[in-house]
Amino acid sequence: MAARLSSPEHYDSLLDKFDTWMFDCDGVLWHGDRLIDGAVEVLDILRKRGKRLLFVTNNASKSRKSYKGKFDQLGVEARVDEIYGSAYAAAVYISSVMKLPKDKKVYVIGMTGIEEELREEGVSFIGGTDPADCTLEPFSLTNFTLDPDVGAVLCGLDVHVNYTKLSKAFQYLTRNPGCQFLVTNEDSTYPSADGLLPGAGAISAPLRFALEKDPISIGKPAKTMLDCIQAKVHFDPKRTIMIGDRLNTDILFGQAGGLSTLLVMTGITLEKDITGPNASTIVPDYVTGSIGDLRAVKAL
Amino acid sequence: MAARLSSPEHYDSLLDKFDTWMFDCDGVLWHGDRLIDGAVEVLDILRKRGKRLLFVTNNASKSRKSYKGKFDQLGVEARVDEIYGSAYAAAVYISSVMKLPKDKKVYVIGMTGIEEELREEGVSFIGGTDPADCTLEPFSLTNFTLDPDVGAVLCGLDVHVNYTKLSKAFQYLTRNPGCQFLVTNEDSTYPSADGLLPGAGAISAPLRFALEKDPISIGKPAKTMLDCIQAKVHFDPKRTIMIGDRLNTDILFGQAGGLSTLLVMTGITLEKDITGPNASTIVPDYVTGSIGDLRAVKAL
Repeated sequence: MAARLSSPEHYDSLLDKFDTWMFDCDGVLWHGDRLIDGAVEVLDILRKRGKRLLFVTNNASKSRKSYKGKFDQLGVEARVDEIYGSAYAAAVYISSVMKLPKDKKVYVIGMTGIEEELREEGVSFIGGTDPADCTLEPFSLTNFTLDPDVGAVLCGLDVHVNYTKLSKAFQYLTRNPGCQFLVTNEDSTYPSADGLLPGAGAISAPLRFALEKDPISIGKPAKTMLDCIQAKVHFDPKRTIMIGDRLNTDILFGQAGGLSTLLVMTGITLEKDITGPNASTIVPDYVTGSIGDLRAVKAL
Repeated sequence: MAARLSSPEHYDSLLDKFDTWMFDCDGVLWHGDRLIDGAVEVLDILRKRGKRLLFVTNNASKSRKSYKGKFDQLGVEARVDEIYGSAYAAAVYISSVMKLPKDKKVYVIGMTGIEEELREEGVSFIGGTDPADCTLEPFSLTNFTLDPDVGAVLCGLDVHVNYTKLSKAFQYLTRNPGCQFLVTNEDSTYPSADGLLPGAGAISAPLRFALEKDPISIGKPAKTMLDCIQAKVHFDPKRTIMIGDRLNTDILFGQAGGLSTLLVMTGITLEKDITGPNASTIVPDYVTGSIGDLRAVKAL
Protein backbone atom coordinates (compact mmCIF):
# COMPACT_ATOMS: atom_id res chain seq x y z
CA MET A 1 0.00 0.00 0.00
CA ALA A 2 1.22 3.47 -0.80
CA ALA A 3 2.27 5.74 2.07
CA ARG A 4 0.16 8.91 2.16
CA LEU A 5 2.35 11.95 2.82
CA SER A 6 0.86 14.88 4.68
CA SER A 7 3.05 16.13 7.54
CA PRO A 8 6.30 18.14 7.46
CA GLU A 9 8.04 15.07 8.94
CA HIS A 10 6.93 12.94 5.97
CA TYR A 11 8.36 15.39 3.47
CA ASP A 12 11.57 15.89 5.48
CA SER A 13 12.08 12.14 5.50
CA LEU A 14 11.62 12.04 1.70
CA LEU A 15 14.34 14.68 1.27
CA ASP A 16 16.67 12.66 3.47
CA LYS A 17 16.14 9.48 1.49
CA PHE A 18 16.67 10.66 -2.09
CA ASP A 19 19.49 12.48 -3.90
CA THR A 20 18.17 12.30 -7.47
CA TRP A 21 14.65 13.50 -8.19
CA MET A 22 13.12 12.67 -11.57
CA PHE A 23 10.06 14.67 -12.49
CA ASP A 24 7.37 14.14 -15.04
CA CYS A 25 6.27 17.62 -16.19
CA ASP A 26 2.68 17.77 -17.62
CA GLY A 27 0.31 17.15 -14.70
CA VAL A 28 3.12 17.40 -12.12
CA LEU A 29 4.76 20.81 -12.60
CA TRP A 30 2.15 22.34 -14.88
CA HIS A 31 -1.04 21.83 -16.88
CA GLY A 32 -0.48 23.13 -20.38
CA ASP A 33 0.58 26.73 -19.73
CA ARG A 34 -0.51 26.90 -16.06
CA LEU A 35 2.00 26.18 -13.31
CA ILE A 36 0.95 23.91 -10.45
CA ASP A 37 0.83 25.98 -7.27
CA GLY A 38 4.10 25.71 -5.35
CA ALA A 39 6.02 23.79 -8.03
CA VAL A 40 8.70 26.48 -8.49
CA GLU A 41 9.27 26.85 -4.72
CA VAL A 42 9.64 23.10 -4.26
CA LEU A 43 12.17 22.79 -7.08
CA ASP A 44 14.10 25.68 -5.50
CA ILE A 45 14.09 23.97 -2.10
CA LEU A 46 15.39 20.76 -3.68
CA ARG A 47 18.17 22.58 -5.54
CA LYS A 48 19.17 24.40 -2.33
CA ARG A 49 19.43 21.05 -0.57
CA GLY A 50 21.83 19.89 -3.29
CA LYS A 51 19.46 17.48 -4.98
CA ARG A 52 20.01 16.51 -8.60
CA LEU A 53 16.89 17.29 -10.65
CA LEU A 54 15.98 15.56 -13.92
CA PHE A 55 12.91 16.24 -16.01
CA VAL A 56 11.72 13.10 -17.77
CA THR A 57 8.87 13.71 -20.19
CA ASN A 58 7.09 11.65 -22.80
CA ASN A 59 6.18 14.87 -24.61
CA ALA A 60 7.78 14.48 -28.03
CA SER A 61 6.23 17.55 -29.61
CA LYS A 62 9.23 19.59 -28.46
CA SER A 63 12.97 18.96 -28.56
CA ARG A 64 14.92 19.41 -25.31
CA LYS A 65 15.99 22.87 -26.50
CA SER A 66 12.41 23.95 -27.22
CA TYR A 67 11.22 22.36 -23.99
CA LYS A 68 13.79 24.48 -22.13
CA GLY A 69 11.95 27.48 -23.59
CA LYS A 70 8.78 26.27 -21.92
CA PHE A 71 10.56 26.06 -18.55
CA ASP A 72 11.88 29.61 -19.08
CA GLN A 73 8.48 30.94 -20.06
CA LEU A 74 6.89 29.49 -16.92
CA GLY A 75 9.77 30.70 -14.72
CA VAL A 76 11.00 27.20 -13.88
CA GLU A 77 14.80 26.91 -13.63
CA ALA A 78 16.20 24.06 -15.72
CA ARG A 79 19.20 23.26 -17.90
CA VAL A 80 18.88 21.48 -21.26
CA ASP A 81 21.02 18.61 -19.93
CA GLU A 82 18.51 18.07 -17.12
CA ILE A 83 15.71 17.47 -19.63
CA TYR A 84 15.03 14.01 -21.11
CA GLY A 85 12.24 13.82 -23.68
CA SER A 86 10.97 10.83 -25.62
CA ALA A 87 11.90 12.49 -28.93
CA TYR A 88 15.52 12.78 -27.77
CA ALA A 89 15.53 9.21 -26.43
CA ALA A 90 14.07 7.95 -29.73
CA ALA A 91 16.77 9.73 -31.75
CA VAL A 92 19.50 8.28 -29.49
CA TYR A 93 17.90 4.81 -29.77
CA ILE A 94 17.88 5.00 -33.58
CA SER A 95 21.49 6.21 -33.87
CA SER A 96 23.11 4.28 -30.98
CA VAL A 97 21.07 1.14 -30.32
CA MET A 98 19.46 0.36 -33.70
CA LYS A 99 22.55 1.86 -35.37
CA LEU A 100 20.53 2.80 -38.45
CA PRO A 101 23.07 2.99 -41.32
CA LYS A 102 23.83 6.56 -42.44
CA ASP A 103 22.37 5.95 -45.91
CA LYS A 104 19.04 4.91 -44.39
CA LYS A 105 16.30 7.21 -43.18
CA VAL A 106 13.29 7.42 -40.90
CA TYR A 107 9.71 8.11 -41.96
CA VAL A 108 8.29 10.43 -39.26
CA ILE A 109 4.72 10.88 -38.06
CA GLY A 110 5.32 13.66 -35.58
CA MET A 111 6.11 17.29 -34.96
CA THR A 112 9.19 19.54 -34.87
CA GLY A 113 10.45 18.05 -31.60
CA ILE A 114 11.17 14.72 -33.26
CA GLU A 115 12.69 16.37 -36.32
CA GLU A 116 15.05 18.56 -34.25
CA GLU A 117 16.28 15.65 -32.15
CA LEU A 118 16.83 13.40 -35.20
CA ARG A 119 18.78 16.20 -36.86
CA GLU A 120 20.95 16.67 -33.72
CA GLU A 121 21.75 12.93 -33.79
CA GLY A 122 22.55 13.03 -37.52
CA VAL A 123 19.62 10.78 -38.52
CA SER A 124 18.03 11.46 -41.94
CA PHE A 125 14.27 11.55 -42.13
CA ILE A 126 11.30 12.28 -44.38
CA GLY A 127 7.64 13.01 -43.58
CA GLY A 128 7.01 14.88 -40.32
CA THR A 129 6.15 18.53 -40.96
CA ASP A 130 6.80 18.28 -44.73
CA PRO A 131 3.84 20.17 -46.29
CA ALA A 132 3.53 17.42 -48.92
CA ASP A 133 2.49 15.03 -46.14
CA CYS A 134 0.48 17.54 -44.08
CA THR A 135 -2.51 17.33 -46.37
CA LEU A 136 -6.09 16.11 -46.53
CA GLU A 137 -5.86 15.55 -50.29
CA PRO A 138 -6.81 11.97 -51.22
CA PHE A 139 -3.93 9.49 -50.99
CA SER A 140 -3.44 7.10 -53.87
CA LEU A 141 -0.84 4.35 -54.20
CA THR A 142 -0.72 5.11 -57.93
CA ASN A 143 1.08 8.37 -57.19
CA PHE A 144 3.26 7.00 -54.38
CA THR A 145 6.89 6.00 -54.82
CA LEU A 146 8.23 3.73 -52.10
CA ASP A 147 11.59 5.03 -50.82
CA PRO A 148 13.68 1.86 -50.34
CA ASP A 149 15.99 3.67 -47.90
CA VAL A 150 13.34 4.07 -45.19
CA GLY A 151 14.51 1.68 -42.46
CA ALA A 152 12.23 2.82 -39.65
CA VAL A 153 8.93 4.56 -38.99
CA LEU A 154 8.91 6.75 -35.88
CA CYS A 155 5.52 7.91 -34.64
CA GLY A 156 4.76 10.41 -31.89
CA LEU A 157 2.05 12.92 -31.07
CA ASP A 158 1.15 14.67 -34.33
CA VAL A 159 -1.76 17.08 -34.49
CA HIS A 160 -1.43 17.01 -38.28
CA VAL A 161 -1.91 13.27 -38.52
CA ASN A 162 -3.90 12.28 -41.60
CA TYR A 163 -4.59 9.41 -44.00
CA THR A 164 -1.61 10.19 -46.24
CA LYS A 165 0.84 9.91 -43.33
CA LEU A 166 -0.78 6.74 -42.03
CA SER A 167 -0.88 5.18 -45.50
CA LYS A 168 2.76 6.00 -46.25
CA ALA A 169 3.92 4.65 -42.88
CA PHE A 170 1.86 1.51 -43.52
CA GLN A 171 3.54 1.00 -46.92
CA TYR A 172 7.04 1.30 -45.42
CA LEU A 173 6.24 -1.07 -42.59
CA THR A 174 4.71 -3.71 -44.86
CA ARG A 175 6.86 -3.38 -47.99
CA ASN A 176 10.39 -2.36 -46.88
CA PRO A 177 12.08 -5.50 -45.49
CA GLY A 178 13.19 -5.05 -41.89
CA CYS A 179 11.62 -1.62 -41.49
CA GLN A 180 11.27 -1.01 -37.71
CA PHE A 181 8.10 0.34 -36.10
CA LEU A 182 9.01 2.78 -33.30
CA VAL A 183 6.87 5.11 -31.21
CA THR A 184 8.11 7.88 -28.93
CA ASN A 185 5.54 6.93 -26.28
CA GLU A 186 2.15 5.33 -25.86
CA ASP A 187 0.29 7.75 -23.58
CA SER A 188 -3.38 7.22 -24.41
CA THR A 189 -4.24 10.85 -23.66
CA TYR A 190 -2.52 14.22 -23.56
CA PRO A 191 -3.32 16.75 -20.81
CA SER A 192 -3.92 20.09 -22.57
CA ALA A 193 -4.58 23.21 -20.49
CA ASP A 194 -8.34 22.78 -20.94
CA GLY A 195 -8.67 19.03 -20.67
CA LEU A 196 -7.66 15.69 -22.10
CA LEU A 197 -7.06 15.10 -25.79
CA PRO A 198 -5.99 11.93 -27.65
CA GLY A 199 -2.30 11.24 -26.91
CA ALA A 200 0.67 9.85 -28.83
CA GLY A 201 -0.51 6.28 -28.30
CA ALA A 202 -3.73 7.18 -30.10
CA ILE A 203 -1.78 8.57 -33.07
CA SER A 204 0.11 5.30 -33.61
CA ALA A 205 -2.95 3.13 -32.85
CA PRO A 206 -4.08 2.95 -36.53
CA LEU A 207 -0.72 1.44 -37.51
CA ARG A 208 -0.77 -1.05 -34.62
CA PHE A 209 -4.28 -2.03 -35.66
CA ALA A 210 -3.60 -2.27 -39.41
CA LEU A 211 -0.30 -4.11 -38.91
CA GLU A 212 -1.57 -6.27 -36.03
CA LYS A 213 1.83 -5.59 -34.47
CA ASP A 214 3.04 -3.70 -31.40
CA PRO A 215 5.73 -1.05 -31.89
CA ILE A 216 8.96 -0.62 -29.95
CA SER A 217 8.07 2.13 -27.48
CA ILE A 218 10.79 4.48 -26.29
CA GLY A 219 9.24 6.71 -23.60
CA LYS A 220 8.06 5.88 -20.09
CA PRO A 221 7.41 3.18 -18.96
CA ALA A 222 9.88 1.58 -21.41
CA LYS A 223 13.37 0.95 -20.11
CA THR A 224 14.82 2.63 -23.22
CA MET A 225 14.24 6.02 -21.62
CA LEU A 226 16.12 5.06 -18.44
CA ASP A 227 18.95 3.54 -20.51
CA CYS A 228 19.23 6.90 -22.28
CA ILE A 229 19.46 8.78 -18.95
CA GLN A 230 21.94 6.29 -17.48
CA ALA A 231 24.21 6.74 -20.51
CA LYS A 232 24.54 10.44 -19.57
CA VAL A 233 24.11 10.70 -15.79
CA HIS A 234 25.35 8.58 -12.88
CA PHE A 235 22.74 8.01 -10.19
CA ASP A 236 22.06 5.42 -7.51
CA PRO A 237 18.59 3.91 -8.16
CA LYS A 238 18.22 3.28 -4.39
CA ARG A 239 18.50 7.01 -3.73
CA THR A 240 16.41 8.11 -6.71
CA ILE A 241 12.72 8.94 -6.76
CA MET A 242 10.44 9.28 -9.79
CA ILE A 243 7.54 11.70 -9.37
CA GLY A 244 4.59 11.49 -11.73
CA ASP A 245 0.85 11.73 -12.17
CA ARG A 246 0.28 8.61 -14.26
CA LEU A 247 0.48 5.06 -12.93
CA ASN A 248 1.01 3.20 -16.21
CA THR A 249 3.80 5.48 -17.43
CA ASP A 250 5.61 7.39 -14.63
CA ILE A 251 5.13 5.02 -11.71
CA LEU A 252 5.64 1.86 -13.78
CA PHE A 253 8.76 3.43 -15.27
CA GLY A 254 10.20 4.16 -11.82
CA GLN A 255 9.42 0.69 -10.55
CA ALA A 256 10.85 -1.05 -13.64
CA GLY A 257 14.08 0.88 -13.10
CA GLY A 258 14.32 0.04 -9.38
CA LEU A 259 13.56 3.63 -8.34
CA SER A 260 11.20 4.76 -5.58
CA THR A 261 8.02 6.44 -6.77
CA LEU A 262 5.81 9.34 -5.69
CA LEU A 263 2.36 9.79 -7.22
CA VAL A 264 0.81 13.26 -7.31
CA MET A 265 -2.94 13.70 -7.75
CA THR A 266 -2.79 16.83 -9.94
CA GLY A 267 -2.95 14.99 -13.25
CA ILE A 268 -4.39 11.86 -14.79
CA THR A 269 -4.71 9.52 -11.81
CA LEU A 270 -7.89 9.79 -9.74
CA GLU A 271 -8.48 8.63 -6.18
CA LYS A 272 -10.58 5.70 -7.47
CA ASP A 273 -7.57 4.49 -9.48
CA ILE A 274 -5.54 3.93 -6.29
CA THR A 275 -8.23 2.92 -3.79
CA GLY A 276 -11.47 1.01 -4.04
CA PRO A 277 -12.51 -2.13 -5.89
CA ASN A 278 -11.12 -1.24 -9.32
CA ALA A 279 -7.82 0.22 -8.16
CA SER A 280 -4.80 -0.31 -10.40
CA THR A 281 -2.31 -3.07 -9.62
CA ILE A 282 0.44 -0.47 -10.00
CA VAL A 283 1.04 0.86 -6.49
CA PRO A 284 3.42 3.77 -5.91
CA ASP A 285 5.62 3.97 -2.78
CA TYR A 286 4.26 7.38 -1.84
CA VAL A 287 1.22 9.52 -2.66
CA THR A 288 0.71 13.24 -2.09
CA GLY A 289 -1.90 15.67 -3.34
CA SER A 290 0.43 17.97 -5.23
CA ILE A 291 4.12 18.64 -5.69
CA GLY A 292 3.42 21.94 -3.90
CA ASP A 293 2.83 19.96 -0.68
CA LEU A 294 6.58 19.60 -0.30
CA ARG A 295 6.78 23.28 0.67
CA ALA A 296 5.91 21.97 4.15
CA VAL A 297 9.49 20.76 4.71
CA LYS A 298 11.29 22.47 7.58
CA ALA A 299 13.42 25.42 6.59
CA LEU A 300 17.14 24.66 6.81
CA MET B 1 -10.80 -29.03 -42.80
CA ALA B 2 -12.09 -26.96 -45.69
CA ALA B 3 -13.17 -28.79 -48.86
CA ARG B 4 -11.14 -27.65 -51.88
CA LEU B 5 -13.37 -27.18 -54.91
CA SER B 6 -11.94 -27.78 -58.34
CA SER B 7 -14.14 -29.99 -60.55
CA PRO B 8 -17.43 -29.21 -62.34
CA GLU B 9 -19.10 -31.75 -60.01
CA HIS B 10 -17.95 -29.79 -56.93
CA TYR B 11 -19.46 -26.57 -58.22
CA ASP B 12 -22.68 -28.31 -59.37
CA SER B 13 -23.09 -29.76 -55.93
CA LEU B 14 -22.67 -26.26 -54.41
CA LEU B 15 -25.45 -24.92 -56.64
CA ASP B 16 -27.72 -27.75 -55.56
CA LYS B 17 -27.12 -27.09 -51.86
CA PHE B 18 -27.71 -23.34 -51.61
CA ASP B 19 -30.58 -21.02 -52.57
CA THR B 20 -29.28 -17.76 -51.06
CA TRP B 21 -25.81 -16.57 -51.98
CA MET B 22 -24.29 -13.74 -49.96
CA PHE B 23 -21.28 -12.10 -51.54
CA ASP B 24 -18.60 -9.88 -50.11
CA CYS B 25 -17.59 -7.49 -52.92
CA ASP B 26 -14.03 -6.06 -52.59
CA GLY B 27 -11.62 -8.94 -53.13
CA VAL B 28 -14.39 -11.31 -54.31
CA LEU B 29 -16.12 -9.60 -57.25
CA TRP B 30 -13.55 -6.87 -57.85
CA HIS B 31 -10.37 -5.15 -56.68
CA GLY B 32 -11.01 -1.43 -56.55
CA ASP B 33 -12.13 -0.70 -60.10
CA ARG B 34 -11.00 -4.01 -61.65
CA LEU B 35 -13.48 -6.87 -62.00
CA ILE B 36 -12.35 -10.35 -61.00
CA ASP B 37 -12.24 -12.52 -64.10
CA GLY B 38 -15.49 -14.45 -64.54
CA ALA B 39 -17.40 -12.74 -61.73
CA VAL B 40 -20.13 -11.35 -63.99
CA GLU B 41 -20.66 -14.69 -65.75
CA VAL B 42 -20.97 -16.54 -62.44
CA LEU B 43 -23.51 -14.07 -61.04
CA ASP B 44 -25.49 -14.49 -64.30
CA ILE B 45 -25.40 -18.28 -63.97
CA LEU B 46 -26.66 -18.04 -60.38
CA ARG B 47 -29.50 -15.70 -61.34
CA LYS B 48 -30.49 -17.99 -64.22
CA ARG B 49 -30.68 -20.89 -61.77
CA GLY B 50 -33.08 -18.84 -59.62
CA LYS B 51 -30.69 -18.16 -56.79
CA ARG B 52 -31.23 -15.18 -54.52
CA LEU B 53 -28.14 -12.93 -54.53
CA LEU B 54 -27.23 -10.53 -51.70
CA PHE B 55 -24.19 -8.29 -51.60
CA VAL B 56 -22.95 -7.82 -48.06
CA THR B 57 -20.14 -5.31 -47.77
CA ASN B 58 -18.34 -3.63 -44.89
CA ASN B 59 -17.52 -0.73 -47.21
CA ALA B 60 -19.16 2.28 -45.55
CA SER B 61 -17.69 4.92 -47.82
CA LYS B 62 -20.73 4.56 -50.10
CA SER B 63 -24.44 4.33 -49.41
CA ARG B 64 -26.37 1.48 -51.03
CA LYS B 65 -27.52 3.85 -53.77
CA SER B 66 -23.96 4.99 -54.55
CA TYR B 67 -22.72 1.44 -54.30
CA LYS B 68 -25.30 0.46 -56.92
CA GLY B 69 -23.55 2.99 -59.16
CA LYS B 70 -20.33 1.03 -58.74
CA PHE B 71 -22.07 -2.20 -59.79
CA ASP B 72 -23.48 -0.40 -62.85
CA GLN B 73 -20.12 1.07 -63.76
CA LEU B 74 -18.46 -2.36 -63.64
CA GLY B 75 -21.34 -3.98 -65.55
CA VAL B 76 -22.50 -6.12 -62.59
CA GLU B 77 -26.28 -6.52 -62.36
CA ALA B 78 -27.64 -5.66 -58.89
CA ARG B 79 -30.66 -4.01 -57.29
CA VAL B 80 -30.33 -1.56 -54.39
CA ASP B 81 -32.40 -3.91 -52.20
CA GLU B 82 -29.84 -6.68 -52.79
CA ILE B 83 -27.05 -4.53 -51.34
CA TYR B 84 -26.32 -4.44 -47.60
CA GLY B 85 -23.55 -2.08 -46.50
CA SER B 86 -22.23 -1.39 -43.01
CA ALA B 87 -23.25 2.29 -43.28
CA TYR B 88 -26.85 1.26 -43.95
CA ALA B 89 -26.78 -1.33 -41.15
CA ALA B 90 -25.33 1.27 -38.77
CA ALA B 91 -28.10 3.76 -39.60
CA VAL B 92 -30.75 1.07 -39.08
CA TYR B 93 -29.10 0.07 -35.79
CA ILE B 94 -29.13 3.66 -34.52
CA SER B 95 -32.76 4.30 -35.48
CA SER B 96 -34.32 0.88 -34.77
CA VAL B 97 -32.19 -0.89 -32.15
CA MET B 98 -30.62 1.98 -30.16
CA LYS B 99 -33.77 4.02 -30.87
CA LEU B 100 -31.81 7.27 -30.60
CA PRO B 101 -34.38 9.96 -29.71
CA LYS B 102 -35.23 12.32 -32.58
CA ASP B 103 -33.80 15.32 -30.71
CA LYS B 104 -30.43 13.60 -30.36
CA LYS B 105 -27.73 13.40 -32.99
CA VAL B 106 -24.69 11.43 -34.09
CA TYR B 107 -21.13 12.74 -34.40
CA VAL B 108 -19.73 11.14 -37.56
CA ILE B 109 -16.17 10.28 -38.49
CA GLY B 110 -16.77 9.00 -41.99
CA MET B 111 -17.65 9.79 -45.55
CA THR B 112 -20.77 10.50 -47.62
CA GLY B 113 -21.96 6.88 -47.47
CA ILE B 114 -22.63 7.15 -43.76
CA GLU B 115 -24.23 10.58 -44.10
CA GLU B 116 -26.60 9.43 -46.88
CA GLU B 117 -27.75 6.37 -44.95
CA LEU B 118 -28.28 8.34 -41.71
CA ARG B 119 -30.31 10.90 -43.66
CA GLU B 120 -32.45 8.11 -45.22
CA GLU B 121 -33.17 6.75 -41.73
CA GLY B 122 -33.99 10.24 -40.42
CA VAL B 123 -31.06 10.37 -38.00
CA SER B 124 -29.53 13.82 -37.37
CA PHE B 125 -25.77 14.10 -37.45
CA ILE B 126 -22.84 16.51 -37.34
CA GLY B 127 -19.19 16.13 -38.33
CA GLY B 128 -18.57 13.84 -41.31
CA THR B 129 -17.80 15.80 -44.46
CA ASP B 130 -18.48 19.20 -42.81
CA PRO B 131 -15.59 21.39 -44.03
CA ALA B 132 -15.26 22.82 -40.48
CA ASP B 133 -14.13 19.35 -39.33
CA CYS B 134 -12.14 18.44 -42.45
CA THR B 135 -9.18 20.55 -41.45
CA LEU B 136 -5.58 20.31 -40.32
CA GLU B 137 -5.84 23.59 -38.37
CA PRO B 138 -4.84 23.12 -34.71
CA PHE B 139 -7.67 21.91 -32.47
CA SER B 140 -8.15 23.67 -29.15
CA LEU B 141 -10.69 22.90 -26.45
CA THR B 142 -10.87 26.64 -25.76
CA ASN B 143 -12.73 27.13 -29.04
CA PHE B 144 -14.84 23.98 -28.79
CA THR B 145 -18.46 23.93 -27.63
CA LEU B 146 -19.71 20.52 -26.54
CA ASP B 147 -23.08 19.76 -28.15
CA PRO B 148 -25.09 18.09 -25.38
CA ASP B 149 -27.41 16.44 -27.95
CA VAL B 150 -24.72 14.16 -29.36
CA GLY B 151 -25.81 10.72 -28.16
CA ALA B 152 -23.53 8.57 -30.32
CA VAL B 153 -20.26 8.67 -32.21
CA LEU B 154 -20.22 6.61 -35.42
CA CYS B 155 -16.85 5.97 -37.00
CA GLY B 156 -16.10 4.38 -40.37
CA LEU B 157 -13.44 4.62 -43.03
CA ASP B 158 -12.62 8.31 -43.44
CA VAL B 159 -9.76 9.42 -45.67
CA HIS B 160 -10.14 12.90 -44.18
CA VAL B 161 -9.58 11.72 -40.62
CA ASN B 162 -7.62 14.26 -38.59
CA TYR B 163 -6.90 15.41 -35.03
CA THR B 164 -9.93 17.73 -34.87
CA LYS B 165 -12.33 14.88 -35.67
CA LEU B 166 -10.62 12.51 -33.23
CA SER B 167 -10.55 15.15 -30.48
CA LYS B 168 -14.22 16.07 -30.91
CA ALA B 169 -15.30 12.41 -30.91
CA PHE B 170 -13.18 11.87 -27.79
CA GLN B 171 -14.90 14.80 -26.03
CA TYR B 172 -18.39 13.46 -26.81
CA LEU B 173 -17.49 9.95 -25.69
CA THR B 174 -15.94 11.09 -22.41
CA ARG B 175 -18.14 14.06 -21.50
CA ASN B 176 -21.67 13.35 -22.82
CA PRO B 177 -23.26 10.86 -20.40
CA GLY B 178 -24.33 7.65 -22.16
CA CYS B 179 -22.83 8.62 -25.51
CA GLN B 180 -22.44 5.36 -27.50
CA PHE B 181 -19.28 4.42 -29.40
CA LEU B 182 -20.20 2.72 -32.70
CA VAL B 183 -18.09 1.71 -35.68
CA THR B 184 -19.35 0.62 -39.08
CA ASN B 185 -16.73 -2.14 -39.22
CA GLU B 186 -13.29 -3.06 -37.98
CA ASP B 187 -11.47 -4.23 -41.09
CA SER B 188 -7.80 -3.59 -40.35
CA THR B 189 -7.01 -2.90 -44.00
CA TYR B 190 -8.79 -1.75 -47.12
CA PRO B 191 -8.00 -3.33 -50.52
CA SER B 192 -7.50 -0.43 -52.95
CA ALA B 193 -6.90 -1.19 -56.63
CA ASP B 194 -3.12 -0.87 -56.14
CA GLY B 195 -2.70 -2.50 -52.75
CA LEU B 196 -3.66 -2.45 -49.10
CA LEU B 197 -4.29 0.74 -47.16
CA PRO B 198 -5.35 1.26 -43.51
CA GLY B 199 -9.00 0.22 -43.10
CA ALA B 200 -11.96 1.42 -41.05
CA GLY B 201 -10.69 -0.39 -37.96
CA ALA B 202 -7.52 1.68 -38.16
CA ILE B 203 -9.54 4.92 -38.31
CA SER B 204 -11.37 4.15 -35.05
CA ALA B 205 -8.26 2.69 -33.37
CA PRO B 206 -7.17 6.07 -31.84
CA LEU B 207 -10.51 6.33 -30.02
CA ARG B 208 -10.37 2.71 -28.81
CA PHE B 209 -6.86 3.39 -27.54
CA ALA B 210 -7.58 6.76 -25.91
CA LEU B 211 -10.84 5.53 -24.34
CA GLU B 212 -9.48 2.08 -23.43
CA LYS B 213 -12.86 0.81 -24.61
CA ASP B 214 -14.08 -1.35 -27.50
CA PRO B 215 -16.82 0.05 -29.73
CA ILE B 216 -20.03 -1.65 -30.80
CA SER B 217 -19.17 -2.88 -34.29
CA ILE B 218 -21.94 -3.15 -36.88
CA GLY B 219 -20.40 -4.77 -39.98
CA LYS B 220 -19.15 -8.30 -40.54
CA PRO B 221 -18.40 -10.38 -38.48
CA ALA B 222 -20.89 -8.76 -36.05
CA LYS B 223 -24.36 -10.27 -35.89
CA THR B 224 -25.88 -6.78 -36.25
CA MET B 225 -25.34 -6.98 -40.00
CA LEU B 226 -27.16 -10.31 -40.26
CA ASP B 227 -30.00 -9.00 -38.04
CA CYS B 228 -30.36 -6.12 -40.48
CA ILE B 229 -30.60 -8.48 -43.48
CA GLN B 230 -33.02 -10.82 -41.68
CA ALA B 231 -35.32 -7.90 -40.93
CA LYS B 232 -35.72 -7.36 -44.69
CA VAL B 233 -35.27 -10.75 -46.37
CA HIS B 234 -36.42 -14.26 -45.48
CA PHE B 235 -33.77 -16.93 -46.00
CA ASP B 236 -33.01 -20.38 -44.61
CA PRO B 237 -29.53 -20.29 -43.04
CA LYS B 238 -29.09 -24.00 -43.89
CA ARG B 239 -29.48 -23.23 -47.58
CA THR B 240 -27.43 -20.03 -47.52
CA ILE B 241 -23.75 -19.60 -48.33
CA MET B 242 -21.50 -16.62 -47.54
CA ILE B 243 -18.67 -16.05 -50.00
CA GLY B 244 -15.74 -13.90 -48.96
CA ASP B 245 -12.00 -13.35 -49.08
CA ARG B 246 -11.38 -12.57 -45.40
CA LEU B 247 -11.48 -15.15 -42.61
CA ASN B 248 -12.01 -12.81 -39.65
CA THR B 249 -14.86 -10.86 -41.27
CA ASP B 250 -16.68 -12.77 -44.04
CA ILE B 251 -16.12 -16.37 -42.96
CA LEU B 252 -16.58 -15.65 -39.24
CA PHE B 253 -19.75 -13.71 -40.08
CA GLY B 254 -21.19 -16.66 -42.01
CA GLN B 255 -20.29 -19.14 -39.29
CA ALA B 256 -21.72 -16.97 -36.50
CA GLY B 257 -25.00 -16.79 -38.44
CA GLY B 258 -25.17 -20.55 -39.05
CA LEU B 259 -24.49 -20.16 -42.79
CA SER B 260 -22.13 -22.22 -44.90
CA THR B 261 -19.00 -20.45 -46.10
CA LEU B 262 -16.84 -20.34 -49.22
CA LEU B 263 -13.42 -18.69 -49.12
CA VAL B 264 -11.96 -17.27 -52.34
CA MET B 265 -8.22 -16.63 -52.63
CA THR B 266 -8.44 -13.43 -54.71
CA GLY B 267 -8.29 -11.04 -51.75
CA ILE B 268 -6.80 -10.77 -48.28
CA THR B 269 -6.40 -14.42 -47.25
CA LEU B 270 -3.21 -16.17 -48.35
CA GLU B 271 -2.54 -19.90 -48.63
CA LYS B 272 -0.40 -19.79 -45.46
CA ASP B 273 -3.41 -18.42 -43.53
CA ILE B 274 -5.38 -21.62 -44.17
CA THR B 275 -2.64 -24.28 -44.22
CA GLY B 276 0.64 -24.73 -42.43
CA PRO B 277 1.76 -24.15 -38.85
CA ASN B 278 0.30 -20.67 -38.37
CA ALA B 279 -3.04 -21.26 -40.07
CA SER B 280 -6.06 -19.44 -38.68
CA THR B 281 -8.48 -21.24 -36.37
CA ILE B 282 -11.30 -19.94 -38.60
CA VAL B 283 -11.89 -22.70 -41.15
CA PRO B 284 -14.35 -22.17 -44.03
CA ASP B 285 -16.50 -25.02 -45.33
CA TYR B 286 -15.23 -24.61 -48.88
CA VAL B 287 -12.25 -22.99 -50.61
CA THR B 288 -11.80 -22.10 -54.27
CA GLY B 289 -9.26 -19.99 -56.09
CA SER B 290 -11.64 -17.41 -57.47
CA ILE B 291 -15.36 -16.80 -57.87
CA GLY B 292 -14.70 -17.19 -61.59
CA ASP B 293 -14.04 -20.92 -61.01
CA LEU B 294 -17.79 -21.46 -60.75
CA ARG B 295 -18.05 -20.99 -64.51
CA ALA B 296 -17.14 -24.69 -64.63
CA VAL B 297 -20.69 -25.71 -63.67
CA LYS B 298 -22.51 -27.76 -66.28
CA ALA B 299 -24.71 -25.78 -68.63
CA LEU B 300 -28.40 -26.32 -67.94
